Amino acid sequence: MRRRLELIRVARSMLVISAHAADFVWRASGAVALHTGVGGEAAVVSLSYGERGESGSLWRRPGQTIEAVRRIRREEAEAAASILGAAFIPLDLGDYPLAVDEEASGRLVEIFIETAPDILLIHAPEDPFNPDHPVASEASRRARLLAMGAGGAPAAFPTIPPPMMYAFEPHQPDLCRFEPDTFLDITPVWAVKEKALQAMGAQAFLREHYTERARQRAFQSRYAGAGSEVEYVEAFQRLTPEMRSAL
Amino acid sequence: MRRRLELIRVARSMLVISAHAADFVWRASGAVALHTGVGGEAAVVSLSYGERGESGSLWRRPGQTIEAVRRIRREEAEAAASILGAAFIPLDLGDYPLAVDEEASGRLVEIFIETAPDILLIHAPEDPFNPDHPVASEASRRARLLAMGAGGAPAAFPTIPPPMMYAFEPHQPDLCRFEPDTFLDITPVWAVKEKALQAMGAQAFLREHYTERARQRAFQSRYAGAGSEVEYVEAFQRLTPEMRSAL
Amino acid sequence: MRRRLELIRVARSMLVISAHAADFVWRASGAVALHTGVGGEAAVVSLSYGERGESGSLWRRPGQTIEAVRRIRREEAEAAASILGAAFIPLDLGDYPLAVDEEASGRLVEIFIETAPDILLIHAPEDPFNPDHPVASEASRRARLLAMGAGGAPAAFPTIPPPMMYAFEPHQPDLCRFEPDTFLDITPVWAVKEKALQAMGAQAFLREHYTERARQRAFQSRYAGAGSEVEYVEAFQRLTPEMRSAL
Amino acid sequence: MRRRLELIRVARSMLVISAHAADFVWRASGAVALHTGVGGEAAVVSLSYGERGESGSLWRRPGQTIEAVRRIRREEAEAAASILGAAFIPLDLGDYPLAVDEEASGRLVEIFIETAPDILLIHAPEDPFNPDHPVASEASRRARLLAMGAGGAPAAFPTIPPPMMYAFEPHQPDLCRFEPDTFLDITPVWAVKEKALQAMGAQAFLREHYTERARQRAFQSRYAGAGSEVEYVEAFQRLTPEMRSAL
Amino acid sequence: MRRRLELIRVARSMLVISAHAADFVWRASGAVALHTGVGGEAAVVSLSYGERGESGSLWRRPGQTIEAVRRIRREEAEAAASILGAAFIPLDLGDYPLAVDEEASGRLVEIFIETAPDILLIHAPEDPFNPDHPVASEASRRARLLAMGAGGAPAAFPTIPPPMMYAFEPHQPDLCRFEPDTFLDITPVWAVKEKALQAMGAQAFLREHYTERARQRAFQSRYAGAGSEVEYVEAFQRLTPEMRSAL
Amino acid sequence: MRRRLELIRVARSMLVISAHAADFVWRASGAVALHTGVGGEAAVVSLSYGERGESGSLWRRPGQTIEAVRRIRREEAEAAASILGAAFIPLDLGDYPLAVDEEASGRLVEIFIETAPDILLIHAPEDPFNPDHPVASEASRRARLLAMGAGGAPAAFPTIPPPMMYAFEPHQPDLCRFEPDTFLDITPVWAVKEKALQAMGAQAFLREHYTERARQRAFQSRYAGAGSEVEYVEAFQRLTPEMRSAL
Repeated sequence: MRRRLELIRVARSMLVISAHAADFVWRASGAVALHTGVGGEAAVVSLSYGERGESGSLWRRPGQTIEAVRRIRREEAEAAASILGAAFIPLDLGDYPLAVDEEASGRLVEIFIETAPDILLIHAPEDPFNPDHPVASEASRRARLLAMGAGGAPAAFPTIPPPMMYAFEPHQPDLCRFEPDTFLDITPVWAVKEKALQAMGAQAFLREHYTERARQRAFQSRYAGAGSEVEYVEAFQRLTPEMRSAL
Repeated sequence: MRRRLELIRVARSMLVISAHAADFVWRASGAVALHTGVGGEAAVVSLSYGERGESGSLWRRPGQTIEAVRRIRREEAEAAASILGAAFIPLDLGDYPLAVDEEASGRLVEIFIETAPDILLIHAPEDPFNPDHPVASEASRRARLLAMGAGGAPAAFPTIPPPMMYAFEPHQPDLCRFEPDTFLDITPVWAVKEKALQAMGAQAFLREHYTERARQRAFQSRYAGAGSEVEYVEAFQRLTPEMRSAL
Repeated sequence: MRRRLELIRVARSMLVISAHAADFVWRASGAVALHTGVGGEAAVVSLSYGERGESGSLWRRPGQTIEAVRRIRREEAEAAASILGAAFIPLDLGDYPLAVDEEASGRLVEIFIETAPDILLIHAPEDPFNPDHPVASEASRRARLLAMGAGGAPAAFPTIPPPMMYAFEPHQPDLCRFEPDTFLDITPVWAVKEKALQAMGAQAFLREHYTERARQRAFQSRYAGAGSEVEYVEAFQRLTPEMRSAL
Repeated sequence: MRRRLELIRVARSMLVISAHAADFVWRASGAVALHTGVGGEAAVVSLSYGERGESGSLWRRPGQTIEAVRRIRREEAEAAASILGAAFIPLDLGDYPLAVDEEASGRLVEIFIETAPDILLIHAPEDPFNPDHPVASEASRRARLLAMGAGGAPAAFPTIPPPMMYAFEPHQPDLCRFEPDTFLDITPVWAVKEKALQAMGAQAFLREHYTERARQRAFQSRYAGAGSEVEYVEAFQRLTPEMRSAL
Repeated sequence: MRRRLELIRVARSMLVISAHAADFVWRASGAVALHTGVGGEAAVVSLSYGERGESGSLWRRPGQTIEAVRRIRREEAEAAASILGAAFIPLDLGDYPLAVDEEASGRLVEIFIETAPDILLIHAPEDPFNPDHPVASEASRRARLLAMGAGGAPAAFPTIPPPMMYAFEPHQPDLCRFEPDTFLDITPVWAVKEKALQAMGAQAFLREHYTERARQRAFQSRYAGAGSEVEYVEAFQRLTPEMRSAL
Repeated sequence: MRRRLELIRVARSMLVISAHAADFVWRASGAVALHTGVGGEAAVVSLSYGERGESGSLWRRPGQTIEAVRRIRREEAEAAASILGAAFIPLDLGDYPLAVDEEASGRLVEIFIETAPDILLIHAPEDPFNPDHPVASEASRRARLLAMGAGGAPAAFPTIPPPMMYAFEPHQPDLCRFEPDTFLDITPVWAVKEKALQAMGAQAFLREHYTERARQRAFQSRYAGAGSEVEYVEAFQRLTPEMRSAL
């Protein structure tokens, strides 16, 4: 299809920051798989395991303990990240509520410095349905700025060039002021995303929900020029301006 | 520079819709030159010549007439478009106020059908300092929709695929709620843009103003990852979602 | 379920204003069926038949004519309205583009006076993907105000009390700044809505699309307190304040 | 009047969270009285007594102490809550500035679990004229989410169904981006509200101010269909979608 | 009071544009009286007499005719303007609906050229409760731009310097996204405003309503530094930037 | 020029709160110089020296230490403030990240009480390119409210009348939702501002950048009525309503 941009680029670095262990799998794993599929490096930071508030099926088992849930979630998320070809960096900060103190913030800044990401995927700034997602979003944006310094000039600390930053879509996009402006065709890596979804041990209904979501986004993408060969799409919203050499 | 997207694409079609003859030259001619420079086709629709309200230097001449101004403006704009490698389509609808009636709107839809643009550059939706720019913007967006039909399904009239639509920047961006999200490096075609600016016979101070503007945008682009080799930039705001095969 | 409001009211009047003949069926027919199901009166105004831009399947037939399409669409929409227990009032103003001139506007005001609606369902104010929907929305809101007069005081023309006004959801809600704030449980009338959908002779994929939409809205409604017995939901956005005797 | 919704429901639970002891009396006590008047349960949490910044008349007395002010404010607010038929839960967190630390936040979550409110009334998110109101609003919304869990699925902690959440109106609504969308007719309980106002020992001018405010809101309600029998109104803004079985 | 700006200026020109004959009296006559009181010139354009929709008390009289209402409204408005020391320019364009066609727009531009206003007072851009006010606001802003030309440069028509533009407050400010940012102390001319209100022959309840409004705005002004000597205030919202020689 | 407001006032107090030592010099020193030039008192609070993130040229020197940078920045900022006739109050809270804890907040409130400012200049609320500026803005607004009390009534602590509050412009105004609404003609004090810029030892390119910015703002001011004698302008956005005795 002539309308789609054909992007060719050398391998670059991608960083994804997820409030709970599963968030990135539902909503951004296609982007990760596309990126690593062409030789890019990717790392996923999971601020918490979502062990208290988002591990419903595990808590249904009698005698369940927080340690066991944390371990299982870690194993699942590592498996999912591995399927996607991404490193998995858990920070284990706890959930419901998630808090990112100065020490954790410092660790996050270090990860920015170490990975020097070109592409950054984070939670959307607003989510009136989840107490942890905006905290993760704010901490991510702040760490990005601290790792960048004031931009251009030398500083008293190591800095990185500004990563292009996107929000992946919230669970309830139209109640979070999320306005998708970038539709990513993940059809070529759909099989990989499906495996990652399965690795999370997620309830069948959520797998179905996000499979359907990817199809609805593909439907919507026709209005952005996608043809019928586009079957699965992930939606993103740009949070920073993009530098381009062509429109 | 690794951070910039490297875009390779086949030649495509670009359409620019300008309220007055000079608007596109100041704010979008770099984008046009980049596009035609790699073999793309481009057409500029000028809804009016700006003969009444935006031809200041011409009206300083004693004995000036509206016909003469219109002719001079047409010649200048044709020359500028020619330098940029773009077709020039004047609709001569009058300015201050510009009005786009149903006949003119129909002509605009025809132009969309004829040019089937992949990229559409229009005025920003708001401009509290200019009576004609929002009229041009609204007419452009409406014609695009009418030329697209309801999207995907057959209709009783010919349709085109949805063009990716950008607003070029207003004269006073921060008073028009214009939020640039796309910085286009026009350094490679700056010499061409300068020639186009000169062709407009514009006052020196406006040429200086927009030269300085392009430098300030380049300065700003460092925060979007541009290096020091980026000297001139045009800023745009996306008005439609973009279909991508990679972030 | 204790959380849901239990509303008991005498039969009232509902008015729905649809740009094209099918719009109200996809997105508001559950609300109409619920309303008429308890004895309320309902009327649907269809500003156009959508004969040019939204009758895709009909235009695939060889030798198709505009008159035939108009007639078929009218019959289908009348059938759908009849299934819902609503009157059908076609204004036949044409589509792509839809225009509501002063005469049509006057007719719309008359319909407001005649039906004196308590509940008004219209298109959302914004829709960057459809040229006719915002025109229909604006015309609807204007006619409502003209029919109301200045509020409270006598006027030189007959007036009605202010109808409570809702927008039904656009085809692409999260790209139209549509923020659903009212989830209507249409599970009890889903069978009726399905029949109305079939009456439109609509393509199978659109029926599936809106069936899935109703299920996704039900899923979303759990966050507004809906239980698992809520299977199908239509989403609306209130455009006027609501007078209440209890929260 | 046929236009008003007639709501009949079983007794439910209402929770009001007030930054200072008097805030809920001025702006939400009518809603509380209506609720308890039909058998509903209500509890008012007062995060502080407003002892430092909002006890003007008390600080005019010579020799006044912070302990005495705190005690008087507590007694007054308890009396007001008692008149309204609501429990009063002071958290005594201090005012100007009010801070809600993790311990206080945990207490607030417990109160949500204990009261399992159907209706939640809180401060509006923005108030550029008061340092404590946005803090109270944010803490209330966060505690609500923490008490809800991720919605639907089991968690490692007890959860409640999502309460319908409203903001009561700020002292200066049109400078706080407060857009009232729900007008509550408190005429039937006006006498109760008047008593509650008097219990606060408030200055005469504030009683007059809010009496006049309730009349102006009633005047405004005519545009939402209220008749002349509606004399006193409290205005609210919905902060969550509402689940309905009829429009 | 030291905090208030002390403005001394030579007499200047003020233009007020009112959709109906009474609008300017309720909401901007204090500003006019202050302006003319120090020697400024003022003109009020009334686009219509409000003869159909806003002359309630007149239409209660049996046998009333549109001509008689128009005449009475004109006389009343002229009397009010005269009390304020302002010229009254009725355009008689009709109301409910008000329409400003190209001829009327041209007349409006001429009035701008003739009066060359320094200060322009118009309706707020949004009013979901009145069909004519946004039409008046849009026509006023457009005429201002047409009279200004492109700003600075000569044009083919006479131009004026840019007037500072304010919106006076709508009837229901907090439902019109009106955010007052300028509080004008009209205490010194309150007696004049009262006379103008009486000249309109307006119903007692509206006079009371706007008297109370002016007192509430004065109350609100304390938060902007007003002392107790400020008893009556009119609120405005700036629609253009202001040029200042001091903050 | 007749159009400009001529303001005459007695000397008043101005407070400027700067996140880093240089911020106020680039963007608000003209306002300070105008204010002190007519006898006003001014104080500049610098929350940090910008020693880590905004002292690029100093960190280029080999063997540089944080103590030395802090000292040099302090001396430069004191010199700049002295040139402007303003007191300089460094709080030395550290930068990248800047944090304002309760103790620092208390100190800030004390400074408000001590200086009782009529005019307050702070950072704009949003800046997606700088981690410290929004922190400084929020801390400034909060301290202002805490110093004001609840407005009008006595409190348990000393209070001040509400200062008029402006945001000075961010480094990248059109990416910070900064909408300038007040253009201040600083031409008369440009020579003073230039000296202050030089005192900061700032890189030549930033001096040039802000000199050009002041010229562009002057250019823009023509649309707000400025004549050609206005050569340098600083732009501000009002954050509080203004009390006026004339428009």
